[in-house]
Amino acid sequence: MRPAASADAVAVAPAACSPELVALAHRLADTAAAVTSRYFRTPVAVDVKQDTSPVTIADREAELAMREVLRQQCPDHGIFGEEQGYLAGSGGSEYLWVIDPIDGTKSFITGTLLPADPLFGTLIALLHRGEPVLGIIDQPILKERWVGVTGQQSTFNGAPISTRSCAAVGDAYLYATTPHMFEGEGEAAFNRVRDAVRIPMYGCDCYAYGLLAAGYCDLVVEADLKPYDYMALVPVIQGAGGTITDWRGQPLRWQAGTEGDVSACSGEVLAAGDARSHQQALQLLAWK
Amino acid sequence: MRPAASADAVAVAPAACSPELVALAHRLADTAAAVTSRYFRTPVAVDVKQDTSPVTIADREAELAMREVLRQQCPDHGIFGEEQGYLAGSGGSEYLWVIDPIDGTKSFITGTLLPADPLFGTLIALLHRGEPVLGIIDQPILKERWVGVTGQQSTFNGAPISTRSCAAVGDAYLYATTPHMFEGEGEAAFNRVRDAVRIPMYGCDCYAYGLLAAGYCDLVVEADLKPYDYMALVPVIQGAGGTITDWRGQPLRWQAGTEGDVSACSGEVLAAGDARSHQQALQLLAWK
Repeated sequence: MRPAASADAVAVAPAACSPELVALAHRLADTAAAVTSRYFRTPVAVDVKQDTSPVTIADREAELAMREVLRQQCPDHGIFGEEQGYLAGSGGSEYLWVIDPIDGTKSFITGTLLPADPLFGTLIALLHRGEPVLGIIDQPILKERWVGVTGQQSTFNGAPISTRSCAAVGDAYLYATTPHMFEGEGEAAFNRVRDAVRIPMYGCDCYAYGLLAAGYCDLVVEADLKPYDYMALVPVIQGAGGTITDWRGQPLRWQAGTEGDVSACSGEVLAAGDARSHQQALQLLAWK
Repeated sequence: MRPAASADAVAVAPAACSPELVALAHRLADTAAAVTSRYFRTPVAVDVKQDTSPVTIADREAELAMREVLRQQCPDHGIFGEEQGYLAGSGGSEYLWVIDPIDGTKSFITGTLLPADPLFGTLIALLHRGEPVLGIIDQPILKERWVGVTGQQSTFNGAPISTRSCAAVGDAYLYATTPHMFEGEGEAAFNRVRDAVRIPMYGCDCYAYGLLAAGYCDLVVEADLKPYDYMALVPVIQGAGGTITDWRGQPLRWQAGTEGDVSACSGEVLAAGDARSHQQALQLLAWK
């Protein structure tokens, strides 16, 4: 028994990810872009302790705007957003939107200022029964958008994309946002991969996964991530022919409880354009 | 005794950096942009060992095009470029152009492929008696251009820019291209600064200096650089109110010998938006 949605609500097709849902995801990305573009490099004072810091304002405004679209279009769907947390849908739907309006450099997420480099991204994922079936990585300043839908080839600004071949991890170009995201055993595991690849590179955040999906790098290894940091990446990378799992090789899924508990989620992510280098990286990580 | 230049040669004004030279530098940036934009993300096979790898083609073409402009406009000036090395001017001029058509992620400079992220830069410096008097950082994909001229306020896409205040290094946002650019004593020195700042960040290459000049980060600490990696940055950062030196606090100058010997050049660079954090970072580096 679903409550009556608003008049222009999306009719959810039986398929896990209907064209209407894809169109809705695009609309969400457009909605966030309108907000984040407005705040990009605005001359605001930087105050790292103030709750209403620029990034928080832009994040909150963008997330609220996306939530309002979802409330009107599919009030039965659940929402989990970086800023405002978990909101159950009104009708116990099997769908959950996982959104991050500004996935910037980790450092910026601490709440100081909007990323000044144009490689931050808006991340939008739609999960069906815990499985990501739709993902968008949107870079509103460069107007670059990656879209992944289960069972379809991923696209970059509408054009089909594929990962590139990389049979041996020793040939791989590796990205991680920062070497400081790894600690203890995780750092040792990352370092084993880092030492094995051709070139380790840093920076880029979610943009690195977009580059991987489009065939411009080979591996991304990260830790300490939240579901809103990576759920959107899964359909994009898989639909481009890549592999993305946690460090044990397990699929990245998330069945949110009513409290939006993220504790069951792995924070470690391994993405590869070529399944062979994914397998080799898994062996190097040797994650228990 | 200067030999006769071609008919449309720039008349070099007595001032170290005339408006004509600034206009010429813009023309060089435009010339490089036409080449690099054409190669950006072109679907070429990646071969890390082949001499005619994509980055080399783009680099060479862009540098040759810039050299041709200089040959026509000011044949008496010297040129030092990343790809084709040193070329003495025809008349023993006091001017030397130091150019790097694609200053990308260090890793890409090793000669594999054009950077796929749009944060690489074309660097153009004009040195007068070894001192950088004009600098351009150009990002042709984003169409972003920083210009610095001795004695003038630096600009970003034509608008004046200033660094931001950062009185204490503990509040600083620090950039370095990669933590792997430091070795031995240099790594220990960098780590002292890294541990003292608020947030260390990686990636960005020359783009980080542009962000610093425009007031979006506070420190850049790097090592293992060549004159074509940093000479263009000096006027941009100084003209925005920042400070840029080597790790000993010495000015970044370079009197090229006839062989273009770079051995006299420091490879360590420290840039700060605020002279106070520059001073504190120098003390932390404690470079002998």
